[in-house]
Amino acid sequence: MTASSLLGGLALRGVDGGTIILVVLDGLGGLPHPDTGKTELESAVTPNLDALAARSSLGLLMPAAHGITAGSGPGHLSLFGYDPLSFPVGRGVLSALGVGFDLQPGDVAARLNLATLDGEGVVVDRRAARPSDEEGRRVVGRVSRGIRPPDDVEVTLIHEKEHRVVLILRGGGLRADVQDTDPQKTGLAPLPVTATDPASALTAQVVQGLLDQVREVLADEPRANAMLARGFGRFSTFPTFEERYGLRAMVVAKYPMYRGVARLVGMAVEGVPADNEETVALLERHYGSCDFYFVHFKDPDSYGHDGDFQGKAAAIEAFDALLPRIADLNPDVLIVTGDHSTPALFGEHSWHDVPILIASPWVRPSATEFGEAACRSGDLGVVPGKALMSLALAHAVRLEKYGA
Amino acid sequence: MTASSLLGGLALRGVDGGTIILVVLDGLGGLPHPDTGKTELESAVTPNLDALAARSSLGLLMPAAHGITAGSGPGHLSLFGYDPLSFPVGRGVLSALGVGFDLQPGDVAARLNLATLDGEGVVVDRRAARPSDEEGRRVVGRVSRGIRPPDDVEVTLIHEKEHRVVLILRGGGLRADVQDTDPQKTGLAPLPVTATDPASALTAQVVQGLLDQVREVLADEPRANAMLARGFGRFSTFPTFEERYGLRAMVVAKYPMYRGVARLVGMAVEGVPADNEETVALLERHYGSCDFYFVHFKDPDSYGHDGDFQGKAAAIEAFDALLPRIADLNPDVLIVTGDHSTPALFGEHSWHDVPILIASPWVRPSATEFGEAACRSGDLGVVPGKALMSLALAHAVRLEKYGA
Repeated sequence: MTASSLLGGLALRGVDGGTIILVVLDGLGGLPHPDTGKTELESAVTPNLDALAARSSLGLLMPAAHGITAGSGPGHLSLFGYDPLSFPVGRGVLSALGVGFDLQPGDVAARLNLATLDGEGVVVDRRAARPSDEEGRRVVGRVSRGIRPPDDVEVTLIHEKEHRVVLILRGGGLRADVQDTDPQKTGLAPLPVTATDPASALTAQVVQGLLDQVREVLADEPRANAMLARGFGRFSTFPTFEERYGLRAMVVAKYPMYRGVARLVGMAVEGVPADNEETVALLERHYGSCDFYFVHFKDPDSYGHDGDFQGKAAAIEAFDALLPRIADLNPDVLIVTGDHSTPALFGEHSWHDVPILIASPWVRPSATEFGEAACRSGDLGVVPGKALMSLALAHAVRLEKYGA
Repeated sequence: MTASSLLGGLALRGVDGGTIILVVLDGLGGLPHPDTGKTELESAVTPNLDALAARSSLGLLMPAAHGITAGSGPGHLSLFGYDPLSFPVGRGVLSALGVGFDLQPGDVAARLNLATLDGEGVVVDRRAARPSDEEGRRVVGRVSRGIRPPDDVEVTLIHEKEHRVVLILRGGGLRADVQDTDPQKTGLAPLPVTATDPASALTAQVVQGLLDQVREVLADEPRANAMLARGFGRFSTFPTFEERYGLRAMVVAKYPMYRGVARLVGMAVEGVPADNEETVALLERHYGSCDFYFVHFKDPDSYGHDGDFQGKAAAIEAFDALLPRIADLNPDVLIVTGDHSTPALFGEHSWHDVPILIASPWVRPSATEFGEAACRSGDLGVVPGKALMSLALAHAVRLEKYGA
């Protein structure tokens, strides 16, 4: 499949266009604080983002569709120009890629959560009291040693972080049309493993057998005595950034999930930064080797999930202090946006559009600050997430004219 | 095919609605000058456009899609409500229509450029030093007399303007999936004529034979000693404006290309104006005979291509001086926009949205000037180019309610 066919008949000019940096501040979009009428981003003191906005086109980015809240996987795939409806991917696949597992086509992956069940088999804690990473690893080690997989299916369990575990199944005839067993709230028993398509019956049977064994192996654990499964997916590679856009691309992200979704579209992983400063340092070290850099900062989303308005604003300010080092690399196109909103007042991902700025030599600036209000009267209007890459390529002068 | 099926279930009220004038200022959209922060349109002194804006709904028009730069053909088809992806047309077809050639279904047309090749067969000037029209006609005459086409293919060469020539092939079994031979830059040899689909192999063979003969015939020419081919297209008629919209439509345009794209959708050509004043005079003379007038002004685009910011602003001012004569015709709907942006700072067509105003009795005015900044906070928001005709018909009160 060629770039032009994927872009609907539109052609790339060649590989000698400009360099693009896409900064994703996870969960950037917010809601106004009732005391001030200002969002987290608008409340944050961000002189560097504001100065960048003054030389950018501004707008609002709609990650999925009107009213639709994007998860992290679809949110990022959309930013990368891969319509999540055309390129579905399970959370398990993203997690497996994120922990660096070398998925092969046909592998089935799922996310497992360590959980606490009571004597009646009812979920009392969906995250087993959030074990430490060390504790999580210990429990997963017990399970890996204790279970006996079926002869013809290779089973891999990898501890991801805290209560999060990845399950990978490899073997002929495995499909992934299997429902989550996580009942999504406490007070209910885990759901049985159910195939939603007959072709996935074998997978459902294998997983149910494994989850039953997990309960036996962990029967004496005080907290992490069961696993809940969700996000089943079967791995198939997508056309890469290089194939679609002619871009050699690289991801710089602390968290496995975001490296995972980037690997799915062929981005290189050159290292794993431990914090935000190392994120920028890694970008600086490798700048010049690629055409496109996806740089991910997690903190705004984490504080949004915690409902911590000030913490989220402070996380944005912390990024602002690092921004000059990114801008000093002088990319032809510098984009700052989020994969979705996580308003502290809402406490989880939301459907609200996300502020976006695109800095390039070819912009129509409209404000001297970066925030939801400034962006909604910006030149870009409301940009569908999946249209972002077309805009990025355009500003990098990498697209041919459509028609003569 | 009925109007209602083409409009996706929307029905026309009948033919007694209002009269619409669509003024296209080619390449209208611009980018801000670094010294002033104002675009060409915003820099121009346009009292008449500003007064019109004060009684119009304003917005930004997106000709093709986010980040996509529209060529003249797709840009205008989109304005006319014909999605270029559903109604593809080669530049050659537009040019052939533009010079008034009576294309028949099945004809294949391409644009040829007179070019200069050196002794090694490398392109040293893609436009043969831009010959005068007289010089271009002389060279094309030599070629027409000198080549021997295959027995079963009728070959027509028509000089268009300067270095521009149109090639039309007529004969059974001709298709147009053939790549351009123009290498797009000097220092390279012309590309071989290559069919991208086996059904077009005959066309490719015929064209290669002709281009080889052209080089022989023009071997002794100092400059125009070869032709480069691009924009192959096969003619098929589109549903007309009258069929789709119930509108008797007319084009007033100085340049062949724009009359061509208008003929493709069934607009009448009543004359060829020599300049902007004659353009308005021709409109005045025929006003009343049709329901829809497409009036084209080329100059802003030409100055944009030349990188002449002041020239483009002056061209817009020159149009502004003529605008009262158009407004005095009292159309029910008067639209002013562009087919794409050609920012002087960018020097070619760009992907940036284009200011649009729609004047009718049914508007929500929002500003007292016409410009990119005023339009981006206008009532229309960002309007996809192909949605313009629905808005035009609505403001002319020509559409039935959708559903009871």
